[in-house]
Amino acid sequence: MMKVRSLFILVFLLIGILACQSTKNNFTDKKTNAQKFSIAIHGGAGDMKKEWMSDSLQEAYKAKLTEAIQAGHEILAKEGTAIEAVQAAINILEDSPLFNAGKGAVLNHLEKPELDASIMEGKTLNAGAVAGVSKIKNPIDLAIEVMNNSGHVMLAGAGAEQFAVEQGFELVPESYFITENRLKAVRAAKKSHSAVLSDEIINKMGTVGCVALDRYGNLAAGTSTGGINNKRYGRIGDSPIIGAGTYANNKTCAVSSTGAGEYYIRGTVAYDMSALMEYAGLSVQEAAEKVIHEKQPQLGGSGGLIAMDNKGRISMEFNTSGMFRASMDEEGNLEVKIFK
Amino acid sequence: MMKVRSLFILVFLLIGILACQSTKNNFTDKKTNAQKFSIAIHGGAGDMKKEWMSDSLQEAYKAKLTEAIQAGHEILAKEGTAIEAVQAAINILEDSPLFNAGKGAVLNHLEKPELDASIMEGKTLNAGAVAGVSKIKNPIDLAIEVMNNSGHVMLAGAGAEQFAVEQGFELVPESYFITENRLKAVRAAKKSHSAVLSDEIINKMGTVGCVALDRYGNLAAGTSTGGINNKRYGRIGDSPIIGAGTYANNKTCAVSSTGAGEYYIRGTVAYDMSALMEYAGLSVQEAAEKVIHEKQPQLGGSGGLIAMDNKGRISMEFNTSGMFRASMDEEGNLEVKIFK
Repeated sequence: MMKVRSLFILVFLLIGILACQSTKNNFTDKKTNAQKFSIAIHGGAGDMKKEWMSDSLQEAYKAKLTEAIQAGHEILAKEGTAIEAVQAAINILEDSPLFNAGKGAVLNHLEKPELDASIMEGKTLNAGAVAGVSKIKNPIDLAIEVMNNSGHVMLAGAGAEQFAVEQGFELVPESYFITENRLKAVRAAKKSHSAVLSDEIINKMGTVGCVALDRYGNLAAGTSTGGINNKRYGRIGDSPIIGAGTYANNKTCAVSSTGAGEYYIRGTVAYDMSALMEYAGLSVQEAAEKVIHEKQPQLGGSGGLIAMDNKGRISMEFNTSGMFRASMDEEGNLEVKIFK
Repeated sequence: MMKVRSLFILVFLLIGILACQSTKNNFTDKKTNAQKFSIAIHGGAGDMKKEWMSDSLQEAYKAKLTEAIQAGHEILAKEGTAIEAVQAAINILEDSPLFNAGKGAVLNHLEKPELDASIMEGKTLNAGAVAGVSKIKNPIDLAIEVMNNSGHVMLAGAGAEQFAVEQGFELVPESYFITENRLKAVRAAKKSHSAVLSDEIINKMGTVGCVALDRYGNLAAGTSTGGINNKRYGRIGDSPIIGAGTYANNKTCAVSSTGAGEYYIRGTVAYDMSALMEYAGLSVQEAAEKVIHEKQPQLGGSGGLIAMDNKGRISMEFNTSGMFRASMDEEGNLEVKIFK
């Protein structure tokens, strides 16, 4: 009888100790999570060779990436939300003619801009997207407006612009977006009857995106693009597709991808990252390697992605020779890179 | 020494037996797989009550579902492909004014049709989609054309129609699609300033879709819809989104979903089915139950889906009170249902 009682006491003691341990761990985790914040951006992946880019052009890209990530980082540091940080960083890249989004986006076959963007919030799984807009200065802002105030997830073309006007957005003339370089590129592509020129492959990619984790432990992801040079037929790529170009879920990760959009849609790339983490138990880095170096090449797709898990760990993988990218952690440690 | 030798012989014998067994199983599996074919269709899920539908209307729905599934089944029996079967079945549903796709689709705020469709092939992961077309008699045909001959996955609006013309499609006038019932419904909704009328909730859903497994062991899925009654702003729902409304992968399953499109996009429903099977080891039925009865209700989404695994096993789940649906196996066993 004594032996049985002793055993009971021992078991209860053990349960007690384990419970305390578990509470302690949970508490530590939550605390760490609530304080930690992190941000990463990309400005597109592609087969860019160092010799194609002058040192000064490389410096210009790096300076703009730095400006964008610092803007997002500052918001996170001041206890802003991940959505606000993603918006601020993407706005700066959209406003720069260096990237294929907003001002300086590639032009379609009619020599007009046709812009796509999407956003997703990891806490609520709320999402917003716009496709084929040509009069919205910052398409990511309209994607956020769609998410918050339309009752829909995805609006396209003139309808999306009508919604924008009703929500108080100012329209800009199409000429705002058009740069001399992009005009040359689309005219050259039209002459050669191709959507991309091999020596100007940089025109193919250059989508911008951002992932962030805020002090509240919430993830967000956003993507903005002009699509592909000389595109026709109202083509929609992966950037405005939730699950392909953009995905965020506090359970797993936030993802923004950049690459050959058709392959990224077929691979449901952004949600696949989340599914590999949630269902197959992969880390964000393992998932990114699987998607970018195994699954996409098997399909025939080239490009890259940036991803962040709910602890702020960042993965930036690409199977091309370069990807404009930057990351910055809580301590302000900055990394800005173009090539491998 | 003898003992060790005996042990080796025993191990080799065991390996030999197991290898034979495994080869035999593989062979049987392949044979069964190559012969088996199966098809399922849906005509939309919604909160439809029996008392809202006269017996004759129920019979009309069942007759059209039967006609559609038999057309697809006949193609599979004659060794046609899963894509051909999906197309044939969906064409019949698109041509019928009973369903919210093709002729008789719901109308947008401007009292015009705005149709979406998508298709995916499980063997190649090739996919095609069109969004916001209003002059294409059978949007699923154009989605197949996009998949096979555009170099893209998704085309929208007037651009998609221009592609169609260049590929030899005939355009139909918008009046072709418009029925008296749908006109009444959109005008009533405009008066009441809502996208849906509670007593005409049937107008909200009614998307059509098909999944099939052919004699070659290949899966395919397709979806076609008019979206939601009185929709505005170029709204795109889940139906033309690969990974949300439609997905097919020979590794796992083919899926066509129908429901509150915004929630289905945010849940990446169709690809989630595949990921739950591939990464979490769920059966097609378990995956469908998880998505439709757990994950979608958590998000707030109502609707259903049809799914088929690569052995031809069918799941048709919905969290509404009804879903127009039918299935037919190799032996021609037909099941046609509307309510639970």
